[in-house]
Amino acid sequence: MAADNRAPVTVLGLGPMGRALAGAFLDNGHPTTVWNRTASRAESLVARGATLADTPADAVAASPLAIVCVIDYDAVHAIVDPAAGALKGRTLVNLTADTPERARRTAAWAAAHGVDYLDGAVMTPTTTIGGPAAVVLYSGPEEIYRTHEATLASLGGGATHLGADPGRAAAHDVALLDLFWTSMSGLVHAFALAAAEGVRARELAPFAKGISALLPDIMESFAQQVDDGRHPGDQSTVLSAAAGMEHIIHAARARGIDTGVLSAASAVARRAIDAGHGEDGFSRLAEVLTNRG
Amino acid sequence: MAADNRAPVTVLGLGPMGRALAGAFLDNGHPTTVWNRTASRAESLVARGATLADTPADAVAASPLAIVCVIDYDAVHAIVDPAAGALKGRTLVNLTADTPERARRTAAWAAAHGVDYLDGAVMTPTTTIGGPAAVVLYSGPEEIYRTHEATLASLGGGATHLGADPGRAAAHDVALLDLFWTSMSGLVHAFALAAAEGVRARELAPFAKGISALLPDIMESFAQQVDDGRHPGDQSTVLSAAAGMEHIIHAARARGIDTGVLSAASAVARRAIDAGHGEDGFSRLAEVLTNRG
Repeated sequence: MAADNRAPVTVLGLGPMGRALAGAFLDNGHPTTVWNRTASRAESLVARGATLADTPADAVAASPLAIVCVIDYDAVHAIVDPAAGALKGRTLVNLTADTPERARRTAAWAAAHGVDYLDGAVMTPTTTIGGPAAVVLYSGPEEIYRTHEATLASLGGGATHLGADPGRAAAHDVALLDLFWTSMSGLVHAFALAAAEGVRARELAPFAKGISALLPDIMESFAQQVDDGRHPGDQSTVLSAAAGMEHIIHAARARGIDTGVLSAASAVARRAIDAGHGEDGFSRLAEVLTNRG
Repeated sequence: MAADNRAPVTVLGLGPMGRALAGAFLDNGHPTTVWNRTASRAESLVARGATLADTPADAVAASPLAIVCVIDYDAVHAIVDPAAGALKGRTLVNLTADTPERARRTAAWAAAHGVDYLDGAVMTPTTTIGGPAAVVLYSGPEEIYRTHEATLASLGGGATHLGADPGRAAAHDVALLDLFWTSMSGLVHAFALAAAEGVRARELAPFAKGISALLPDIMESFAQQVDDGRHPGDQSTVLSAAAGMEHIIHAARARGIDTGVLSAASAVARRAIDAGHGEDGFSRLAEVLTNRG
């Protein structure tokens, strides 16, 4: 979808992501109105042509479409609740990360106030915004998404409408952030363990990249196994994974490194083994995590 | 390094990885002798030309180089200790995964018995062995590695000698498996959380792959930060990571999904915040994990 560069747009909240979003709209020539609790955060955007509004209500009145991206939904409501009157008949796109349940609650609030509402999630770092690598997910009524699709295209790369359920983008977001932050926890722990063994992070990094290159194929096959509820152990088993995790826990403990994350992961594997799933593939744990009693 | 296809080689242990290793030697024309506690595991290899030995001692006597790859070092010693006499003056390459400490202990055992010893780690799945994607790490005396480098090249792709310390391959191995299993735990948890929100694993997988594509750049920058001991929070902070993790824990708990792994990760972040590192980058946690008191 080609960007529509003439549509005015408002951005509420100018943290790092809010500034990146507003910057992408400016770069694409949109008349862009911004607001932030601390007005000084808007300076560089104003220098690039943005209009700074005094209040959220003034900001949303300037455009048919307002984007809000702040720390959580409490912060969203602190901004948009006083501007509900000005938002009526306009569209609010909420790119703040929070839970699916809260997304649905905010959608209900918007409906009650006559505000067209899309809930979204930005899946890539600020530096990608406006470029081909940006990934932004949206959910909510399709006709609202189609109305603003050309404007939202200015945010870059991959925009995807996931369906009418307003919680759907947040559902993807929490699941993907779950994967991301757990992996990041593994990364810093791997660097800590390597350092304790005299291996510098720079020495480990090329091999760590090799590990990340294995993930897409595994994601593909685990996804099939999880959806199908069949977990063949022909490649590797919960038992061998548990043995591997024990080696790592042993090595970390011997070096005085915290083992909380891996011990918790190992406990899930042990629960699967106790339930008779030791010879199944590791993807079985997706079920064990859900059926914890 | 081109493979030397004439050198005889012995493979002890015919689990999935041992069979893949023996198969790669056979594919490259090496006279290959194999041994396994359960001899029937050798059948397909014998059909491809391998010689099945009756005992580990007979197996190692057939070649200047023996590879052992079993479940752990206890299993290694159960096999090689009774064959120590036959191994004397030959080379043992131990590709079993275990801790650096155990690798050093087995190297000392080998030295005491006049056995040339390399400790190694296979970093890629069985399916990669013999092909360009295989990654195998070795540590131990360089001259021993050079003597057998051309034979070991038959295992495929990236063979790397990491240095004389026999624990060095295992140090890389535990750190990389730490990253791998923690990431896998995040993956199955993400699928469980998505499923609970009505998002199928197959729907999530393409976006999960997008997350894995972000990792190499992050690994590179975190590695620099960890080595340099400087953790700028300009891209994202421990505080924002902790907030993100709380959203995920909240969403998982609301769906009755186990939150052990992420709660443990969140506890590390909170410890960093309590120690005054909230505005630092996430890589700071590598230090927090080590200095737990």
